[in-house]
Amino acid sequence: MNDNAMPSTQSPVSDFAGLMARLKSSIPAHCILSKTEDTRPYECDGLSLYRTLPPVVVLPENEEQIIAVLQGCKAFNVPIVARGAGTGLSGGAMPHAQGILLGVAKLNRIKSIDLQSATAVVQPGVRNLAISEAAAAYGLYYAPDPSSQIACSIGGNVAENSGGVHCLKYGLTIHNVIRARVVTIDGAVVELGSDAPDSPGLDLLAVFIGSEGMLGIVTEVTVRLIPKPARARVIMASFASVETAGQAVTDVIAAGIIPAGLEMMDKRAVHMVEPFVKAGYDLDAAAILLCESDGTGEEVDDEITRMEAVFRKAGATRLQVSRSEQERLIFWAGRKNAFPAAGRVSPDYYCMDGTIPRRHLSRVLSAIEQMEDEYGLRCANVFHAGDGNLHPLIMFDSNLPAEVERAEKFGAAILELCVQVGGTVTGEHGVGIEKINQMCVQFTREELDAFAAVKTAFDPYGLLNPEKVIPTLARCAEYGKMHVHEGDIRFPELPRF
Amino acid sequence: MNDNAMPSTQSPVSDFAGLMARLKSSIPAHCILSKTEDTRPYECDGLSLYRTLPPVVVLPENEEQIIAVLQGCKAFNVPIVARGAGTGLSGGAMPHAQGILLGVAKLNRIKSIDLQSATAVVQPGVRNLAISEAAAAYGLYYAPDPSSQIACSIGGNVAENSGGVHCLKYGLTIHNVIRARVVTIDGAVVELGSDAPDSPGLDLLAVFIGSEGMLGIVTEVTVRLIPKPARARVIMASFASVETAGQAVTDVIAAGIIPAGLEMMDKRAVHMVEPFVKAGYDLDAAAILLCESDGTGEEVDDEITRMEAVFRKAGATRLQVSRSEQERLIFWAGRKNAFPAAGRVSPDYYCMDGTIPRRHLSRVLSAIEQMEDEYGLRCANVFHAGDGNLHPLIMFDSNLPAEVERAEKFGAAILELCVQVGGTVTGEHGVGIEKINQMCVQFTREELDAFAAVKTAFDPYGLLNPEKVIPTLARCAEYGKMHVHEGDIRFPELPRF
Repeated sequence: MNDNAMPSTQSPVSDFAGLMARLKSSIPAHCILSKTEDTRPYECDGLSLYRTLPPVVVLPENEEQIIAVLQGCKAFNVPIVARGAGTGLSGGAMPHAQGILLGVAKLNRIKSIDLQSATAVVQPGVRNLAISEAAAAYGLYYAPDPSSQIACSIGGNVAENSGGVHCLKYGLTIHNVIRARVVTIDGAVVELGSDAPDSPGLDLLAVFIGSEGMLGIVTEVTVRLIPKPARARVIMASFASVETAGQAVTDVIAAGIIPAGLEMMDKRAVHMVEPFVKAGYDLDAAAILLCESDGTGEEVDDEITRMEAVFRKAGATRLQVSRSEQERLIFWAGRKNAFPAAGRVSPDYYCMDGTIPRRHLSRVLSAIEQMEDEYGLRCANVFHAGDGNLHPLIMFDSNLPAEVERAEKFGAAILELCVQVGGTVTGEHGVGIEKINQMCVQFTREELDAFAAVKTAFDPYGLLNPEKVIPTLARCAEYGKMHVHEGDIRFPELPRF
Repeated sequence: MNDNAMPSTQSPVSDFAGLMARLKSSIPAHCILSKTEDTRPYECDGLSLYRTLPPVVVLPENEEQIIAVLQGCKAFNVPIVARGAGTGLSGGAMPHAQGILLGVAKLNRIKSIDLQSATAVVQPGVRNLAISEAAAAYGLYYAPDPSSQIACSIGGNVAENSGGVHCLKYGLTIHNVIRARVVTIDGAVVELGSDAPDSPGLDLLAVFIGSEGMLGIVTEVTVRLIPKPARARVIMASFASVETAGQAVTDVIAAGIIPAGLEMMDKRAVHMVEPFVKAGYDLDAAAILLCESDGTGEEVDDEITRMEAVFRKAGATRLQVSRSEQERLIFWAGRKNAFPAAGRVSPDYYCMDGTIPRRHLSRVLSAIEQMEDEYGLRCANVFHAGDGNLHPLIMFDSNLPAEVERAEKFGAAILELCVQVGGTVTGEHGVGIEKINQMCVQFTREELDAFAAVKTAFDPYGLLNPEKVIPTLARCAEYGKMHVHEGDIRFPELPRF
């Protein structure tokens, strides 16, 4: 990888036919898909607004074949896009029209579970939930729980640094993966991270996790497993305004409590969900909070009592605590089914993913309400409130091109508002292709340069998931957006070219 | 920073005189030290075995001056070494004989404390403990607590990713710093990280934290503050063998308990410390554990009861629980004074810092005992047991050159043993100059290449803290060490040059 200090001497011309001839000699025929009916299922990920039919899909069965694909792509200058289960929500796995789509689904083996260190070594195609299922026999589980956990792969989780409802207490993928085995674009195998709390040298594991397929292909992951809590209970609290609900979130954290989950839904989201799941949500509330405690029985009862006191003091108009595991699951059912519920009341919906400082919650919600009129579309709001991570659901009809365009503009406006109040354009879904323009708003030219330099350090040829995540300066200039920084407007300097 | 894709067109010749002429026009005279009596105090950090007198020390008073220094060093091709409080233990702040030593001590202002987000914005020269002192009025504190916390700076903590006794529960610097403002070698200011749980784009904050001054100079840091626990109690447990003590550590974590601190001392360490601090340590024990719980009163009492049960079952020969804050501090006094105690029984001591998987604890301790004979030096062992982080203290006399050499070899042998059993050459003190040869043992050529590529992405001219942390392949070849990987011996390929 030292080559990055020198300009590439390779021809910029891709030789796709040459690559295919080479791959046919090193990859079994049944691992290479090229007929349209076979490649069609790979044309998009969970962000189905954006589609590109890949010319070839390769589904390797082992690390040697992944090395062969990468070495081949480098030799013939062909782009490569990696894909886990394809459940991503920002188009990170959207194929390249002149590239290879590399799916890791066949590397789906849990290689070992070590009880003494409470870790598991898994291949990238293993489903998130399958790890917890395998660890359940030992009373352990893998904590990050994205909504897609029944289907999404740990390889995709590493690419996106996935979180979930419980990440406030248990962290994101970065906090639960301690080692990754990675193949670089040169075909070299490197191990990032270690079993130690702090690995020597630069923390390349952290930069790899969440790098959205731009730095290399992961072939093996060591994850941390944690003991399954003996008990969990959830409080459902109603508030008469979004402000008071937001203040209650701040208060509970200020009280030294880190809830296992802390979610908010606004009135529109509650009204959308309740007829669907009949969870007993309070239709009169301006916002409801779901706040969970887990641990030993005594710990949970103690924490729930303290949480109740905080919410009561913050002005909760109704408080219910789950009295059984069944009731806990019913309380959560509404939140967990918000997306399907949106699908029930609208032909299509567009799930946004921005973060904001919690103190700006009501300001941002009011602004989104105004935007509903401006763009002529409805928007329901669910949040990882504890993290300040917003998931506005914009409802539209994809059969109406004008609505699609308005939905995209509405989404972009929400993300730019997030940056304006000191937040970010993505909380946990990644940038991919979806938010690449908003990266011009989030970051300065120097910051984008720093991303590009590290990308180039790993991939000097620019073949790994090109044209994603890091916008070129030309793209930013074309998008014409100013960099907005924590509420200040800074006018951009002229781009370099 | 995009220049890294091109070879530098700069002259490789340093022009120190030219740099000084430039600096004198942009930096006040009282901020530039060049007389030997002024620069002498900067010739080493806490690793006083290695010393280099810096030709010039610059102590800027603000970010503009730091930018001026970096732009000047780049223009005149002069190396630059950053320094916080100089308490580091691996020589990371050891000056360069032909370079500028840049001290950030004068940037020592706590700029703001925000209660709603529980964060503080501080300059890099602020002392670690000063943050907690300022936050105490609000019931908050900054969690990472390196032994040097009374003196060490947050800038140095960021450079070394410092931990401390409580990092098992509260994490390292990386887990408690959410944003850093950094000046690059080009003089550009970039902001890494954000208030959001996951910042968009590559996680450059994580790669910067622990990068030991190789990537840029930090000028401002946002740290997370957490509520001060209402109560803390510590168990002191004796064990008849290191094996049973090690098993007790595994058992307590397997029980789902994350102690606030979990430390082990071997018999030699206990016998070294007890006459000095008189903490009532058990002189008959082969090893003692100190295991702390913190939180609300009820939580702590419940957790202490569960910890006691685990230790009893694991075969503890004596158990004492602190009954007052005063007694808790006495129990800790022995551990916290292990280093001064070593200084009392030996003219000099060399504190090592490796990590190992906990299951190899007794194997490694036996090997260290054998090495004591081999190298003719005594070694006492204190550990962050919960993290598997070893701190062997090798005792020697620096007036005897032969002992110095044996101490260095003894230390290297311990670190290489750590790698052999699947551990690492540094847990929390960094690589600096001290462990640079052991990096050849820890990592493959491809892994060192990856480090070098990212270093080059930030610093294509190689001016920031050169010749530290990442060994050149020539150095590894000269050191003649094989890469050892999780117990397997791999013979290295021939170096590239």
